[in-house]
Amino acid sequence: MSLGKAAIVGVGTIGRGWALLYAKAGYRVSLFDPSVAAMDAALGAIATSLDDMAAFGLVRGRDKIMARISIASTLRDAVADAEIIQESAPESLDAKREAIAEIGREAAPLSIIASSCSSLLPADIFQDAAGPDRCIVAHPFNPPHLVPLVELLAGPATSDETIERTRAIMLQLDQAPIILRKPVPGYVANRLQAAVINESMHLVANGVISPDDLDLCMTESLGRRWAFLGPFATMDLNADDGVAGYARRFREAYQELGRDLGVAEPWEETAIAAVTEACRARTPMLDLRSKREWRDRQLMWSLVRSRLGPRDDGTAAKEKA
Amino acid sequence: MSLGKAAIVGVGTIGRGWALLYAKAGYRVSLFDPSVAAMDAALGAIATSLDDMAAFGLVRGRDKIMARISIASTLRDAVADAEIIQESAPESLDAKREAIAEIGREAAPLSIIASSCSSLLPADIFQDAAGPDRCIVAHPFNPPHLVPLVELLAGPATSDETIERTRAIMLQLDQAPIILRKPVPGYVANRLQAAVINESMHLVANGVISPDDLDLCMTESLGRRWAFLGPFATMDLNADDGVAGYARRFREAYQELGRDLGVAEPWEETAIAAVTEACRARTPMLDLRSKREWRDRQLMWSLVRSRLGPRDDGTAAKEKA
Repeated sequence: MSLGKAAIVGVGTIGRGWALLYAKAGYRVSLFDPSVAAMDAALGAIATSLDDMAAFGLVRGRDKIMARISIASTLRDAVADAEIIQESAPESLDAKREAIAEIGREAAPLSIIASSCSSLLPADIFQDAAGPDRCIVAHPFNPPHLVPLVELLAGPATSDETIERTRAIMLQLDQAPIILRKPVPGYVANRLQAAVINESMHLVANGVISPDDLDLCMTESLGRRWAFLGPFATMDLNADDGVAGYARRFREAYQELGRDLGVAEPWEETAIAAVTEACRARTPMLDLRSKREWRDRQLMWSLVRSRLGPRDDGTAAKEKA
Repeated sequence: MSLGKAAIVGVGTIGRGWALLYAKAGYRVSLFDPSVAAMDAALGAIATSLDDMAAFGLVRGRDKIMARISIASTLRDAVADAEIIQESAPESLDAKREAIAEIGREAAPLSIIASSCSSLLPADIFQDAAGPDRCIVAHPFNPPHLVPLVELLAGPATSDETIERTRAIMLQLDQAPIILRKPVPGYVANRLQAAVINESMHLVANGVISPDDLDLCMTESLGRRWAFLGPFATMDLNADDGVAGYARRFREAYQELGRDLGVAEPWEETAIAAVTEACRARTPMLDLRSKREWRDRQLMWSLVRSRLGPRDDGTAAKEKA
């Protein structure tokens, strides 16, 4: 397999996850980061992640994959001849704008410049870019190599070809690209997350439920459905006449409920304190790191399930390709 | 195993799920429904569900379990000597209030009367009940034998003993009970669901995303995390200093996002039409039933995972017991 070259600019958690994904798919990967120590550390971290994934049967041939990844000594070397450059600089307007402008000056005209940006507006971060038609936001989840979603969001000048090529590349990586047709604050995934978190804080603040029970509520009902069935598909199966009938019957009730939700209310100090106390009682500060490793193992289990298990034709990225 | 007797009043999908759960846990189960045909059908459906679960290793000894379930010829016979009576009448105030009043007249004073009510206020449905101290809402998800959550909600007169006994029984059934400390419209799970569905409709109505991509967004990111990690636990792992640090840094951003959400807006006709079209393109009307069977197999897979796989100490119902 030889698919061309991908450059990763910035090698924090996100950049490292991208490097793994591109190399696993068969790309030659060139890393660049202002810190040489960070690049060395990245190589070790990627190798460890590959070992972890191999234990779940999610990758094979670790050494072959690692051999595709190299460290570049300059940004120019990193981006030379790259099919796609994945910008993963820190999430601030200045850092992003500068990084993208600099990449734009060094990159070949046909290279896609994909930003891992998670919240800023494309119009702002692409403002100083040379060739903004080839710039696009490709926002992954954390960690990218364990969570398939990538939100694609065009800037004002992004070409349709850039969108289509980026989408095709993401499918090659076994990721699940979705297309946002206009920019909205938080993009889509974080808006859904905010709806849930804000309402959860509101319910705790109002003494309706304990933080532990709120978390159980999610994992023991909605969460295990949403892991394989989106909100619309869920509605569709909950009525004999499908989502159209469901909408007719429950529209009014959902609207009433919607008006009662506290998602626009600030997080109360008392609620934050109660949530903190509950989380620390479950996981002492010193165990947070091993708990995170546990989370990643669970996510790998999800990947195994969604890639090997029976899938729905409407919700599996690979089958849509 | 012999745990006493449970009565199931009303044998629709919910009542049948309860019957399976109680019998599987070792209860003698007595079914009552105004329709004898419905009770006969229920026995067949429960046996089929047990076979499906056996294929996933989730139950053993189908015949032994079925032998614990019998049909009562009168409500009085059904509830006689029952430790708990699970009311699963249709979801309307009149139907619930009447069913609960009638059960109250026939039941022994120490029998718990648990209502499967999903949205009405306890004060309303328990209004005519004899012995309201033993009445409680125990709201399951659908289907109850495949989704562990049970929302417990006391009425104005419900005794602490009733809450504690019901919680203990739910844990015996391997379900995950949570306690709502005050009544709110939609209880908790459906509020979280409404937050997500309403915002999803809003995003489709505003042309931000297609219904297919919205569903993918959930299944390929948030959903697979929420399947094993609640919203608060997720935040806790997303910052090196845990949820307290996360709250400090992102509180303002979430609040801003919360004010931008469209959860209080009505579902636009255009959005409903787009969602319907997408769902029908994925699953023709005639395939809805087999798709529902696929969903149930996926839920069984989730049960296998959460019961046999590695668990978090804070989110597993069984380990909290």
